[in-house]
Amino acid sequence: MPDVYSPLLSQLIEAFQCLPGVGSKTAQRMAFHLLDKDREGAGRLAETLERAVKSIRHCERCRMLTEERVCRFCGSDKRDRTQLCVVETPADLLAIEQSGAYRGDYFVLMGHLSPIDGIGPAELGFPLLEQRFVAERFAEVVLATSVTIEGDATAHLLAALARKHGLRASRIAYGIPVGGELEYVDGGTLARALSGRRAMDSAGEGERS
Amino acid sequence: MPDVYSPLLSQLIEAFQCLPGVGSKTAQRMAFHLLDKDREGAGRLAETLERAVKSIRHCERCRMLTEERVCRFCGSDKRDRTQLCVVETPADLLAIEQSGAYRGDYFVLMGHLSPIDGIGPAELGFPLLEQRFVAERFAEVVLATSVTIEGDATAHLLAALARKHGLRASRIAYGIPVGGELEYVDGGTLARALSGRRAMDSAGEGERS
Repeated sequence: MPDVYSPLLSQLIEAFQCLPGVGSKTAQRMAFHLLDKDREGAGRLAETLERAVKSIRHCERCRMLTEERVCRFCGSDKRDRTQLCVVETPADLLAIEQSGAYRGDYFVLMGHLSPIDGIGPAELGFPLLEQRFVAERFAEVVLATSVTIEGDATAHLLAALARKHGLRASRIAYGIPVGGELEYVDGGTLARALSGRRAMDSAGEGERS
Repeated sequence: MPDVYSPLLSQLIEAFQCLPGVGSKTAQRMAFHLLDKDREGAGRLAETLERAVKSIRHCERCRMLTEERVCRFCGSDKRDRTQLCVVETPADLLAIEQSGAYRGDYFVLMGHLSPIDGIGPAELGFPLLEQRFVAERFAEVVLATSVTIEGDATAHLLAALARKHGLRASRIAYGIPVGGELEYVDGGTLARALSGRRAMDSAGEGERS
């Protein structure tokens, strides 16, 4: 590549490869698209990215990414402070918030336990979380980690930490997605759905068994 | 999104969507990845992109993207100036150059004819190309546009332009890829391969029929 493209163009293609899932072909496509068709967008991206790298840090209370000292959830006076939902990523927080079914506090781990990558409890903010377990009065800790081996392990460790401080821990339900047809659901999900079955009352609504 | 993420984080996610094929989900993943795991790469990308937008222009001779007045091919004294290869994009130029089978001059259209997008001969640099047809002494114009309706139309117009100036135009051969098995080749390619067949000489090498 260096002996075909100009030095700066080669550098730009190289720089795009810091993005997740972007190899040299995609990076070339991105560079050519921006330089040829959207210089305005490229300028805005460069400027915004520079500002973001300088100002965006973790919220002091919940580790969400924000350029303020605390994020908008921790700074809000409209949230239920007796519930704490622990998620792996900001995108998971967004998904839960957009469901409209939760109005409590959040804690963002920014990952999950992964010993081979050197990610243990300290990297996931467990010390800060424990401080909050002590200082605040949570009635419930809702664990919303992924249904993967790492997510399960993380949830178990979090539940143990909550119990240590006398807090009730729950995990969001895993089962058949709404609109899902049994025939096409994988065995693992079906096993989770069966073990998490609930008794039905006369009104037809599911109740915890 | 705006009421979940901080203003700057929302702006960053928005800004990433100027990249081709990047929607809001991918943009989020990019923003979180850079802020959480690769701030150094993000800083370098921001800085390189800013410089590239400021300095990279089209080569005066061949329209290749470069931060110099002329690109390294036009500036080189090692190229065969009697041949001119016309390609659609810088990536196509790279592919031809990497094949090692061409050492002549290039001309980069930066696209192909596309009337619905308002891309006609002027947008593709035909006036500059015609100037070069007049001013330089090309023995052959090699057309290497894509095998699409637009690429074919572009090649035909280019061939007409070359003929107008008494230049010989050729188009690179389209057929079965090396290592390709007939059984799996699509009908369109097979039709091209049949119509482009060559007589075989006694040495077994193909000759133009």
